[in-house]
Amino acid sequence: MREVFHQSLEDVQNRLVEISELVTIAIDKATRAFGTSDVALAEEVIDADAVIDEKALALDEMAIEILARQQPVARDLRIVVSALRMSASLERMGDIAEHIAQLTRMRFPERAIPKGLKSTFLKMGELDVEVARRLTELLRTQELALVEEIRNADDDLDDLHVAVFEKVLSDSWQGEAAATVDATLASRYHERFADHAVSVAKKVAYLSTGDWTAPTGALDVATETVTGLA
Amino acid sequence: MREVFHQSLEDVQNRLVEISELVTIAIDKATRAFGTSDVALAEEVIDADAVIDEKALALDEMAIEILARQQPVARDLRIVVSALRMSASLERMGDIAEHIAQLTRMRFPERAIPKGLKSTFLKMGELDVEVARRLTELLRTQELALVEEIRNADDDLDDLHVAVFEKVLSDSWQGEAAATVDATLASRYHERFADHAVSVAKKVAYLSTGDWTAPTGALDVATETVTGLA
Repeated sequence: MREVFHQSLEDVQNRLVEISELVTIAIDKATRAFGTSDVALAEEVIDADAVIDEKALALDEMAIEILARQQPVARDLRIVVSALRMSASLERMGDIAEHIAQLTRMRFPERAIPKGLKSTFLKMGELDVEVARRLTELLRTQELALVEEIRNADDDLDDLHVAVFEKVLSDSWQGEAAATVDATLASRYHERFADHAVSVAKKVAYLSTGDWTAPTGALDVATETVTGLA
Repeated sequence: MREVFHQSLEDVQNRLVEISELVTIAIDKATRAFGTSDVALAEEVIDADAVIDEKALALDEMAIEILARQQPVARDLRIVVSALRMSASLERMGDIAEHIAQLTRMRFPERAIPKGLKSTFLKMGELDVEVARRLTELLRTQELALVEEIRNADDDLDDLHVAVFEKVLSDSWQGEAAATVDATLASRYHERFADHAVSVAKKVAYLSTGDWTAPTGALDVATETVTGLA
């Protein structure tokens, strides 16, 4: 029975890695499409999101099967419940990549990146791709040094998110309302993407260190920085 | 054992109702504070969100306890897993109420509702409160007619969300960048609040009708309408 369970857990892990790889491809294409107004690339991301959704759903069904058939307890149970939550976060990261692609498509043939914010958004895009790559690696290797790297990239994204609002609300901002709307939404998407990655990374860390006092619950699905919007 | 399990499920249900009541109070205060620039009321919402977070976490721990001790299968297992997901959605609804309160506080003593959008946002606020009240009632009574009412209110909110963007991107819009940012974020928060309520309501419906082919998974945590942003 233990062996069956461990085989099941390995299947779950492999599926999490697979979904994380698809999310990495999605955010890489979405942020490149956003930076270059490449509407064909944006379409690819939008079309591919259904695959991420299906794979997340299949993983959820597998986790529920494991709970029903193998009735894990203690740490094993926490691992399976955490997998359900990680799947939800990864699925959400895929949605966010799709939203960035949708912004690109909506503005086409105009540029989706508002004037004056190009370097900021290119940097945000690079950081999101880096976060997704490291998360995939973390899910594959459980190498906990990656958790800190993901957190650091998230901190950098939070700083850039604040910088976008400072720019938009400064006297030098000459964007029209459409540019302001785009900057607001795009910045929020970029920043939220990394929040979800941090939430997954924390769960991997808790499962490795056995620190059950730290929340594994709903709480940190939604961790987000309050921005200096004012 | 069955009786113990049913007692546990009743406890879970009572806790979901309790959290939903707190979320209703939060969104009621947050939208009233937003409409009247009442910063003291906004502070109340911000302070109270920690209670919602704690209660969601306690409910998650209870659900994991039930999985470990009572090892439910089939429909019983789905109910417990769904409770974990409903708790995550309710917690997120609390966060969104807090975000609306934060917008109010950041703009104080200025008005948080951008000029020209007052009646739209008041209507959005009323709809969100109505959605929260009906969701609480649904969780308490399992009266499935409420699901349709929640969906209808969500449709109305989606229409208003589109109307906000039409206004902001119209020639008549004279708001400064700060007003455009506020309208964008506030409209997204109001609309997302109801998305999460629909996701919870759907789960209640699935559990009642036994329609397992419908997704109960990560998928519809995030259901959202693609808005006519363009």
